[in-house]
Amino acid sequence: MQTIKDLLIEEMRDTYSSETQILDGLGAMAEAATSPNLKQAFLTHRQETQNQVERLKQAFEHLGADPEGNTCEATQGLIAEAEEVMEEGLPGELLDVALVMAAQKVEHYEIASYGSLKTIAQDCGESAVAALLAQTLDEEKATDEKLTRLAGTEINKTAIAASPSA
Amino acid sequence: MQTIKDLLIEEMRDTYSSETQILDGLGAMAEAATSPNLKQAFLTHRQETQNQVERLKQAFEHLGADPEGNTCEATQGLIAEAEEVMEEGLPGELLDVALVMAAQKVEHYEIASYGSLKTIAQDCGESAVAALLAQTLDEEKATDEKLTRLAGTEINKTAIAASPSA
Repeated sequence: MQTIKDLLIEEMRDTYSSETQILDGLGAMAEAATSPNLKQAFLTHRQETQNQVERLKQAFEHLGADPEGNTCEATQGLIAEAEEVMEEGLPGELLDVALVMAAQKVEHYEIASYGSLKTIAQDCGESAVAALLAQTLDEEKATDEKLTRLAGTEINKTAIAASPSA
Repeated sequence: MQTIKDLLIEEMRDTYSSETQILDGLGAMAEAATSPNLKQAFLTHRQETQNQVERLKQAFEHLGADPEGNTCEATQGLIAEAEEVMEEGLPGELLDVALVMAAQKVEHYEIASYGSLKTIAQDCGESAVAALLAQTLDEEKATDEKLTRLAGTEINKTAIAASPSA
């Protein structure tokens, strides 16, 4: 690896691996969620993630590179954490709170990834690639905000109402 | 685990494990960084992280709980990724770009963690705990912004100038 464009491609492969792992993760999280609104939020974002994978493939085409080849270890850890939450046998209301937390960690991982990638693509003069990455970045930020709203208006309130007082 | 307060404590243990891992990680990243400004940014944030660990201990005291007991797998993945970057034998200018990316992923992980924890602490009526978590959340956001600025003003430019043209 000798140029910043090589690094961009390498890091985009990491993000490609991340998105394909998240695709599976979101399916499992949608199945586990108790709240119909949360379930729907995960399914909607799963659909978005499918589009994001396609968008990444387009970006790789622009760069004349192959998306395959890396395994994102950080995402493996994030998904392992979400799986742990699902296996803990939590009451449904607490499970939903924990799932929102796990999902927002994933979203922030992606916000950091796409934020850096977009800037580097711009700096390299790869404006078409930067535009594709920026589109996904905006979707990830919107999903994070949606989850914050859902936690505030429903998920956390339901869990508090269901918690036996200490 | 039966109440949202139990979940708060459990998730705070995860974050405590995360911070102690990051403390080691930042030391290694400061050592590896080529740019003196980046090195200094990592060292400054390492000092902040030490304060954040102390702040978490205070929050656990408020809740009458022990900070030990969890290992944060997501942070293990994030640190493994940063270590991989350091072992790749990259030219110094590219290494710095990759280190900023790895560090911002860690920052965003923490922003997501402290954001959720602060909200849950508030919702549980644990205002002293929420205030401690909010203070760290602000520091993590400031560090992320500082790294974005450093990438934009120096690190990415240096790497582009040093990249042989394609």
